[in-house]
Amino acid sequence: MERAIELAQRGMDSNEGGPFGCVIVKGGEIIAEGNNRVTSENDPTAHAEIVAIRRACKALGDFQLTGCDIYTSCEPCPMCLGAIYWARPDRVFYAGTRQDAANAGFDDSFIYEELDLSPENRSIPNHQILQSDATILFDKWKEKEDRVDY
Amino acid sequence: MERAIELAQRGMDSNEGGPFGCVIVKGGEIIAEGNNRVTSENDPTAHAEIVAIRRACKALGDFQLTGCDIYTSCEPCPMCLGAIYWARPDRVFYAGTRQDAANAGFDDSFIYEELDLSPENRSIPNHQILQSDATILFDKWKEKEDRVDY
Repeated sequence: MERAIELAQRGMDSNEGGPFGCVIVKGGEIIAEGNNRVTSENDPTAHAEIVAIRRACKALGDFQLTGCDIYTSCEPCPMCLGAIYWARPDRVFYAGTRQDAANAGFDDSFIYEELDLSPENRSIPNHQILQSDATILFDKWKEKEDRVDY
Repeated sequence: MERAIELAQRGMDSNEGGPFGCVIVKGGEIIAEGNNRVTSENDPTAHAEIVAIRRACKALGDFQLTGCDIYTSCEPCPMCLGAIYWARPDRVFYAGTRQDAANAGFDDSFIYEELDLSPENRSIPNHQILQSDATILFDKWKEKEDRVDY
């Protein structure tokens, strides 16, 4: 975790993005590191955890982080926590909370609240159209013999 | 939306990933497209929406999608919905639902449920350590005169 905090500090000092760092460990060794790079890379998805997860998966040649632990300098936002669920590591360790992030001007806590609203009541409106076209797609997926589940 | 569905179909047929597609529109024109590439790129974050958001931001040279609409073949999972909140488009249109995705074997609905649990009660355990180190970081961020908010 000390290394994750150090990465956060460095990324902030070099104006790569916000004060967030992340380290991914497997078998006692660091296999990937990341810090927030949103503003320097014009990539709103480049949170420390996303950067580190992508690098760790590249290092392992896998889309799963089985047997890995994630150390992140702040409680993951919904985007990053979602990414963690898709990557399926063993454990997550975090330092700051979503409230600490909110106090520093970040939307983490706000986004958690928005996710619990029904799609049409969110501050960014979500509208459903053409549902039947999507269910046809999913039916084809279920019938696909060479599909790779993830 | 028809184009998003078409991208989903193509990505599935070419074994790039799951049956999901996304199109981002600004001023009546498509500025970015994406389809799921998780299994082909060993990247659990390469959902259609994340791929399209990254490409749209690159095209605009900005980390915000102000004035854009997102058309996605399925209700965004928490990771993608989080990314959407960070990118701040005007509106989101989706076709399939999280239940449709769950029926086809995807974890979207499960992850929504997990996010509402307290960190220590999740199926992937979340543990807090060294909170004070993170709050020091956030204090430095608030005091940083040349910071770029996002």
